[in-house]
Amino acid sequence: MSAVLAYLKENRDQLLNKLTDFLTIPSISTDSIHKQDVQKAADFVVRYLKEIGFENVDKQETKGHPLVYAEYNGAGEEAPTVLFYGHYDVQPVDPIDEWTSDPFKPEIRDERIYARGASDDKGQVFMHLAVFEAYMKTEGKLPINVKVCIEGEEEIGSEHLYEVLQSDKERFHADFAVISDSGMVAANQPTILYGLKGFTGIEVKVTGPDHDLHSGIYGGAVRNPITALSHILASMKNEEEVITVEGFYDDVEPLSDEERKLISEVPSEDYRNSTGIPETVSEQGYTPQEHTMGRPTFEINGIYGGYQGEGTKTIIPSTATAKITCRIVPGQNPNKIQDLLEKHIMKAAPAGVKVEVKKEKLSARAYKVEPSNPLIKVAAESYTKAFGKETVYIRMGGSIPVVEWIEAIYNIPIVLLGFGTPEDRLHSPNESFPLDSFDKGMETLVYYWEKLGQK
Amino acid sequence: MSAVLAYLKENRDQLLNKLTDFLTIPSISTDSIHKQDVQKAADFVVRYLKEIGFENVDKQETKGHPLVYAEYNGAGEEAPTVLFYGHYDVQPVDPIDEWTSDPFKPEIRDERIYARGASDDKGQVFMHLAVFEAYMKTEGKLPINVKVCIEGEEEIGSEHLYEVLQSDKERFHADFAVISDSGMVAANQPTILYGLKGFTGIEVKVTGPDHDLHSGIYGGAVRNPITALSHILASMKNEEEVITVEGFYDDVEPLSDEERKLISEVPSEDYRNSTGIPETVSEQGYTPQEHTMGRPTFEINGIYGGYQGEGTKTIIPSTATAKITCRIVPGQNPNKIQDLLEKHIMKAAPAGVKVEVKKEKLSARAYKVEPSNPLIKVAAESYTKAFGKETVYIRMGGSIPVVEWIEAIYNIPIVLLGFGTPEDRLHSPNESFPLDSFDKGMETLVYYWEKLGQK
Repeated sequence: MSAVLAYLKENRDQLLNKLTDFLTIPSISTDSIHKQDVQKAADFVVRYLKEIGFENVDKQETKGHPLVYAEYNGAGEEAPTVLFYGHYDVQPVDPIDEWTSDPFKPEIRDERIYARGASDDKGQVFMHLAVFEAYMKTEGKLPINVKVCIEGEEEIGSEHLYEVLQSDKERFHADFAVISDSGMVAANQPTILYGLKGFTGIEVKVTGPDHDLHSGIYGGAVRNPITALSHILASMKNEEEVITVEGFYDDVEPLSDEERKLISEVPSEDYRNSTGIPETVSEQGYTPQEHTMGRPTFEINGIYGGYQGEGTKTIIPSTATAKITCRIVPGQNPNKIQDLLEKHIMKAAPAGVKVEVKKEKLSARAYKVEPSNPLIKVAAESYTKAFGKETVYIRMGGSIPVVEWIEAIYNIPIVLLGFGTPEDRLHSPNESFPLDSFDKGMETLVYYWEKLGQK
Repeated sequence: MSAVLAYLKENRDQLLNKLTDFLTIPSISTDSIHKQDVQKAADFVVRYLKEIGFENVDKQETKGHPLVYAEYNGAGEEAPTVLFYGHYDVQPVDPIDEWTSDPFKPEIRDERIYARGASDDKGQVFMHLAVFEAYMKTEGKLPINVKVCIEGEEEIGSEHLYEVLQSDKERFHADFAVISDSGMVAANQPTILYGLKGFTGIEVKVTGPDHDLHSGIYGGAVRNPITALSHILASMKNEEEVITVEGFYDDVEPLSDEERKLISEVPSEDYRNSTGIPETVSEQGYTPQEHTMGRPTFEINGIYGGYQGEGTKTIIPSTATAKITCRIVPGQNPNKIQDLLEKHIMKAAPAGVKVEVKKEKLSARAYKVEPSNPLIKVAAESYTKAFGKETVYIRMGGSIPVVEWIEAIYNIPIVLLGFGTPEDRLHSPNESFPLDSFDKGMETLVYYWEKLGQK
């Protein structure tokens, strides 16, 4: 193992040069102009995997961008098999003027490498490949068996991934999965992400008159759809941030005392500074961190109806619409939550208007792996050893579709090993990744594979 | 008097031809391309007033379009002086494709004259002038003294009228005013409009974070501005359509039993048919007609915040805004109402967001003349005599700025004698005016002036 670490140290410049080549390819998946670049990035990954010594390396075409697959079976039947997922496509770069250096000419400044994809996710994918290379070059083998699945459509919703995962279950089957497409709560703060929320959404549309009416002539005889919508929305969550939809919390797995303790150990974000809000609010009985990480949320993402221009237009509008999404936690079923929301809304709908609920098709269950799971414990130890700092455990309010799908199709534990930092500016101009994370992240992976291979 | 009526009958074709000339001028006040046409329409009125025999006929220039002024003082000092207000400008004609005949080539079909301005307000102004002509041509004098004030900016908010009325109080001073720029509740149903609502407005803006936030990361720590706005709005009017802003009804002049009886005699609109609503709603304790005519209203005219596009965007939006106007009744002070709304909103504002209230500058008090006022009684009798049907008394939820101004500056009774019908399609394609209203309306005016001259 020390030889592996030494290899990474000695070859750091060469590895950074190789990462630079990878980051130079503008593999923007959403932009058809870059279709060939996306292919080039896939080819880069294919070439690298072959160099390392992976078997069955395959660029699997989809209706969109290809998925790169590879296997390593040399660790023996006793050793566990990991499914390593990542993506080689990147976000667009607009507004281009705000970049200090060219997003596709990687530049190192202040111990960070600046480029689109440096953190999300090319940089983190590359670290895994470099660690595999180091093992093969020094020990001639990997401690574990690996299935590699690196897609080119993550930034456009992983459009064809579910189909692929579903269509060849044998191919992608593994004992557990590892994904490095997330971050740590602070630079140099090893972080285990052990849970994600699911989500579900609805749209409520209230229709009153069939056209906008003169408020002077009709005001007093006609229900105002915006007022009706306000009443409905106000009835769904109270000022204490408690969701007042009947049955909403019924299936929520309660936060255990252990989890509340873990959450309390996570360094708190300075919300006032990062968001400009005068003060935080959270569900009665829970801290903002407990709520964001471990309790379901109800957010109105958008609302519109009637006149939105300058000045005044004295109308009773014909319609008012609100878009709502809920982030749900383990135990909750997104379809059931949609049904409860719909039922509540229909019950709250006042006379004089028509209320319609449209259920969003995209929805996902929450994901959680127990912090006490050995795969998690070993990851935490590896992090701590590499970063020299105790690992914190977090759950996140966001959703990662691939996590939900791997869980749904294969029902295996998923270990989310993120090395990004809050300063990485994902999806924004001047994306970067700290070289410190690059070094210590690879070190973490070396410890992790080594330890898992010994089991 | 019978000679006057005979004159109108005998000269009907010639008068309709003259009205046609007036309607042919495209005096669209909002469109600078038509600036000369607006002048032409003013010149038409000036010429006609001179022909009739008015004195001091004057085209008074303003910073916008001119105001036509004229006097008739031949009825003697004993006779009352009326200020007759009207306007010769018209609305734009878009969408032009929907007109069956050219908006500025008047055409008579099915006993209606179709043209832009046929009802609003050239047609009704013309009827007054024709009646004055008939008196002068037959009796050589008018039964009353008249001051004529016909403006060219009504359709653009009477921008310079207040200034003019205010600047020369002596000139426009009269014992009462008559305006024919409104309608009857149904064709052939004589209608006295004896009250108008005032109005006032505010805009509420709720700001949470300084930019849209990821609902997965921040949901649970940050107050959602749309939810906050919904709570505020829901607290201002309840489901029984009662406005729950403290003090809102304090100064409202109660509806008397007499008025409720008058209102109950007005033929009711079929709201389901005209607006498409499933059922009417109105303030607890009041019928829809009582509420629309005589009780204040609170309407949210528009609302917006966050994502309004297709599908889902999982954000906590930075801001949410609502536009609110109230129609107020006699007794209520628009500025005080704005203050009460603001106070309520500020008190209802929850922690975690910033709430701002912007007060609309445009506001007006309500106007009402007692139905028992002799000027009103005589008008009702004249209507009934001409149309052969009992007159109904209505109040209207709308506002007419000039009424508020004449009241504020001169404090004289204002008689609103409207001859339009609900089918006239004001401001819309295919505006028209029934020839029946043209004939009976002029007859009504003949009776009215005659009777008032005898007093």
